Amino acid sequence: MPESFGVALLGAGRMGMEHARTMLGLAEARVLAVADPNTRAAEAAGGLLQAEAVYADPEEAIAHPGVEAVVIVTPTDTHARYIELAARAGKAIFCEKPVAKDLGETRRVLEAVEQRGVPFQIGFQRRYDPPYRQARDKIEAGEVGEVEQFIAVMRDPAPAPLEYLAGSGGIFIDQSIHDIDCARFLVGEVEEVHAWGAVRVDPRIGEIGDVDTTNLSLRFAGGALGVIQNSRRAVYGYDVRTEVFGSRGKLVMDATPKTPLWQYGGGVSADHYHFFMDRFKEAYRLELEAFFRSLSKGERPTPGGRDALESLRVAIAATRSLKEGRAVRLEEVG
Amino acid sequence: MPESFGVALLGAGRMGMEHARTMLGLAEARVLAVADPNTRAAEAAGGLLQAEAVYADPEEAIAHPGVEAVVIVTPTDTHARYIELAARAGKAIFCEKPVAKDLGETRRVLEAVEQRGVPFQIGFQRRYDPPYRQARDKIEAGEVGEVEQFIAVMRDPAPAPLEYLAGSGGIFIDQSIHDIDCARFLVGEVEEVHAWGAVRVDPRIGEIGDVDTTNLSLRFAGGALGVIQNSRRAVYGYDVRTEVFGSRGKLVMDATPKTPLWQYGGGVSADHYHFFMDRFKEAYRLELEAFFRSLSKGERPTPGGRDALESLRVAIAATRSLKEGRAVRLEEVG
Amino acid sequence: MPESFGVALLGAGRMGMEHARTMLGLAEARVLAVADPNTRAAEAAGGLLQAEAVYADPEEAIAHPGVEAVVIVTPTDTHARYIELAARAGKAIFCEKPVAKDLGETRRVLEAVEQRGVPFQIGFQRRYDPPYRQARDKIEAGEVGEVEQFIAVMRDPAPAPLEYLAGSGGIFIDQSIHDIDCARFLVGEVEEVHAWGAVRVDPRIGEIGDVDTTNLSLRFAGGALGVIQNSRRAVYGYDVRTEVFGSRGKLVMDATPKTPLWQYGGGVSADHYHFFMDRFKEAYRLELEAFFRSLSKGERPTPGGRDALESLRVAIAATRSLKEGRAVRLEEVG
Amino acid sequence: MPESFGVALLGAGRMGMEHARTMLGLAEARVLAVADPNTRAAEAAGGLLQAEAVYADPEEAIAHPGVEAVVIVTPTDTHARYIELAARAGKAIFCEKPVAKDLGETRRVLEAVEQRGVPFQIGFQRRYDPPYRQARDKIEAGEVGEVEQFIAVMRDPAPAPLEYLAGSGGIFIDQSIHDIDCARFLVGEVEEVHAWGAVRVDPRIGEIGDVDTTNLSLRFAGGALGVIQNSRRAVYGYDVRTEVFGSRGKLVMDATPKTPLWQYGGGVSADHYHFFMDRFKEAYRLELEAFFRSLSKGERPTPGGRDALESLRVAIAATRSLKEGRAVRLEEVG
Repeated sequence: MPESFGVALLGAGRMGMEHARTMLGLAEARVLAVADPNTRAAEAAGGLLQAEAVYADPEEAIAHPGVEAVVIVTPTDTHARYIELAARAGKAIFCEKPVAKDLGETRRVLEAVEQRGVPFQIGFQRRYDPPYRQARDKIEAGEVGEVEQFIAVMRDPAPAPLEYLAGSGGIFIDQSIHDIDCARFLVGEVEEVHAWGAVRVDPRIGEIGDVDTTNLSLRFAGGALGVIQNSRRAVYGYDVRTEVFGSRGKLVMDATPKTPLWQYGGGVSADHYHFFMDRFKEAYRLELEAFFRSLSKGERPTPGGRDALESLRVAIAATRSLKEGRAVRLEEVG
Repeated sequence: MPESFGVALLGAGRMGMEHARTMLGLAEARVLAVADPNTRAAEAAGGLLQAEAVYADPEEAIAHPGVEAVVIVTPTDTHARYIELAARAGKAIFCEKPVAKDLGETRRVLEAVEQRGVPFQIGFQRRYDPPYRQARDKIEAGEVGEVEQFIAVMRDPAPAPLEYLAGSGGIFIDQSIHDIDCARFLVGEVEEVHAWGAVRVDPRIGEIGDVDTTNLSLRFAGGALGVIQNSRRAVYGYDVRTEVFGSRGKLVMDATPKTPLWQYGGGVSADHYHFFMDRFKEAYRLELEAFFRSLSKGERPTPGGRDALESLRVAIAATRSLKEGRAVRLEEVG
Repeated sequence: MPESFGVALLGAGRMGMEHARTMLGLAEARVLAVADPNTRAAEAAGGLLQAEAVYADPEEAIAHPGVEAVVIVTPTDTHARYIELAARAGKAIFCEKPVAKDLGETRRVLEAVEQRGVPFQIGFQRRYDPPYRQARDKIEAGEVGEVEQFIAVMRDPAPAPLEYLAGSGGIFIDQSIHDIDCARFLVGEVEEVHAWGAVRVDPRIGEIGDVDTTNLSLRFAGGALGVIQNSRRAVYGYDVRTEVFGSRGKLVMDATPKTPLWQYGGGVSADHYHFFMDRFKEAYRLELEAFFRSLSKGERPTPGGRDALESLRVAIAATRSLKEGRAVRLEEVG
Repeated sequence: MPESFGVALLGAGRMGMEHARTMLGLAEARVLAVADPNTRAAEAAGGLLQAEAVYADPEEAIAHPGVEAVVIVTPTDTHARYIELAARAGKAIFCEKPVAKDLGETRRVLEAVEQRGVPFQIGFQRRYDPPYRQARDKIEAGEVGEVEQFIAVMRDPAPAPLEYLAGSGGIFIDQSIHDIDCARFLVGEVEEVHAWGAVRVDPRIGEIGDVDTTNLSLRFAGGALGVIQNSRRAVYGYDVRTEVFGSRGKLVMDATPKTPLWQYGGGVSADHYHFFMDRFKEAYRLELEAFFRSLSKGERPTPGGRDALESLRVAIAATRSLKEGRAVRLEEVG
């Protein structure tokens, strides 16, 4: 029987409930406390998890007796605060991305984590998605040789609400960062970026100073070239495809269709993923499982603070490139 | 918070552990007792599930206070006995297929279930596999029109041990029955069968009076023709593909590859499922979830006793056809 | 510059025009004469090919000066007559399948061919289709090991006109024979068959004593089991898929979709082949090219008379099995 | 019988022979003269085509009596000269891309074509490849809505010889131009480009001042963003994939595998195209067929001079962007 850890779940929204269901099936996680200002949501999660206590305020959940680890699924702009609180309280931390939208706060918070030496994992779930994980293994085993090119496409089914977008830090920091982290995971560090953006989906996105359609060129430290293309809308559903090309071959990660059922009748057709939580359901489960396994084994969970920080730096460079209309080297980003 | 049911898990082998993990994540199931003559296995499952008690004897687990439902994953030839005991004790029953290998015992046991009116579900998991379930919905919605042809192929990666095969009732009753049930699920009742078999994989399978390679023709009551082709060995892994063809189109269920990662280098390649539990992992979870949801809602779980019985009758007809070298009508089978 | 042969093209219908276009691009073939009772069709082909003469009567075309080879694409029931005439005149012969619908006439005609020693090729074009040809090479190279199972599915987009079907010899001799020949090509000789048929597409097909939906079980001399499933109608187009399974792996020949263009929007979709001449366009070209290459090199073209005869014997056995409701051994067929 | 045109084939290398075989099967084309300084090659083609005359000097072939159209497949740096000669002689012209590597010469030559009003088609064959052609039709029919993003990947199996590359005008003008023309064909005119390049394949390519690995960002006049990624080497063969994404859906053109034969054994695998002439074999035939059909009908063939010019302007802008390290607007290019 594996060791189990007392957990506080902070946030009981859609993703919080997903993590709740995962933890329900994980012998290593005993959720003792759930917190959400939406008390009905908190109680639903608490009931499902048979938690000892349900709070409106995440701070109280962190302080609940027996809590050894926190799973932070609160709104983005509260992440930094709860990471810091949890770190100071000596808890192990799993937090959805991002730590924070700006570099200064991200650095400050991650230093608090470092100082206390608490285990910390950031929710770049794609690193745990089986095709991506296998791709990484194959790349490390040399099966594609020297990496020369990288392509990532990711499109959301529909834009998030405008008020969310307005506070999101912009598309590179909010959306592209997943592909940026994936690029770093599969190819390595980025040295220079060049970004273009357009408003093609919704003019109101332009009015809040953001774009909804992007082209991001990457020059990797190892010499490879890459491109990330994102959109805030794809009418056919959630679209994610990644390609790593090298001197010995190519790897393509593309999970189309969703259901292995083909219908013949006026051609051939199949369905498509409609939502990222659907596409990465297994990855969300595996990342949390990995977090608790790391705690059990006393190993450092991954991806950690450095990945949170470095992927953010690339996203900030992209944002700057878009605004200044020029290529930006990563060394320019604080 | 959903109603939850006290459960006795009978059998803690590989499939028992799979069901244990599923129930760990199901709020509707509280496993109170686990039983397995292999006490280490029983204790491992009991620990994972935080069960109140662990027994060597399934009878004692059935009788454990608070148990309302039993999940039977014991060796095949004990199913009948525990179904009967659980039925007489008024418990809801989920049992791996088959009820029994012969018709008389199957009938007797299912009558006990009927008499007591306990909910009963047989583990034909494929009915819960998403492509198969969607195919059924599409067929019922008329999307393929009148069904005219059916093809099912299923091949195991390697034969089970000889001692298992010797007591399995033969390949039609042990293996083909999954495709038979699938045929009944998607197309309807079978009226006549014609079977051929060969020993191609292992001559010792012939020595115990069985075959390892089969061709089973089906004539459905609705007039369609079908074929089921099975083998005890496929070196590339577990192979399962089903096709339903009708006057308005065709549906194909085929989950190749396993991982959506394509490798280019001397051609294009991807991996393949290696094991049925791997291929149908989601189906095994969904069938058990459905069982408990049915209990919650007071609905009759499905597939139930009639499906267990009718699919067995087809398998018995196939066995007789193989032995007697002629087509056999279902009405000939008791 | 390759040697070129004077050719008489007998038949200028749809398939005749296909062969005409192929020969237009073949330096080895100079079509000198074209014959078709439909003189407008004959003249169209003759014009395209810049033939020296156009005839209504194929006999005259065979006798045209300089003709060394005949390509027979006339109605099925005239094949035997023109093969015999051409053979007696010492011409090399390419003939669409079948030689004849009954065994006696087929034997008689092929004996005439043998006696005169003229090169003879029968139009089982699938043997020249690239995936089938590569499959054969892989099987011969041992890449699937010992063959254990075979599955072939072929469905026409729509039934041919009733008057054609009435004179076609029945579905096994008219349609299934392509899959039968393919089975012999990929797996080897057939020892026993068991056939079932149904009328599902058009009741008038039943009224002329034929079926439109079939299940044909094959037992190969080498011990493998196979199944061929055919239908006279598939609303989504021409459907052909073949699978060879053996002790070391499996080969699947399946050319879906037709055009490598995928459309995303409410799922994923692509087109499908609509017609066998479309699907096997390349094979029709390659078989004729191979015929003339054989003539150039003085090699025996393939498939020849023996394949025409043996595949017909299997189709006749299938027809008998359907009528007599029992398995039929090939040795029973004359 | 269609009208036929007297043709001079200039160039009898690999691609010249491909066009020769196509014209052999085209009733509209009678090749009267073939020219190639390599007289053995010229004679081989002349023999195959039963041409009246074979020349070493293309000028003589243009002047051969009865020649109405020329097909120019000579080395790149001679295209301009023969286009001009043929135009002045009043011949219809089909010419492989490019007209010339610099804008001045291209303009001068195309003006000669315009002045004489001769039909002119440039060999951007991809416009005739069935998936690309269908995609264009679907885009024009509004099936993807407003185009928002474009991605094209094209990788050659191996770099051309260094001496060829040294005179090729650089990778954008020599290789990317096919994807550039495809972008213009499917999405529309380009307004601005930003290019990055790297030497990853062969350092000698860097020594001649070129790159072998590129990232080209496109901003279309209609507002869409695009990216073209090219490489001079892909060990698994010729790689070409194109994606057009819009407000109503997405189209993907990707012809993997080459042969519809799947091999199962240690996973699933299939082959891949090895060479562009192989991948676009049908397109090369269809483009030439279309050229002669246009002549027959008295229609203007397409793509014509304007497409040759505009695609070259984009490639020149890309080259400038790479050299100057900044985005370049098309209006800056002469």
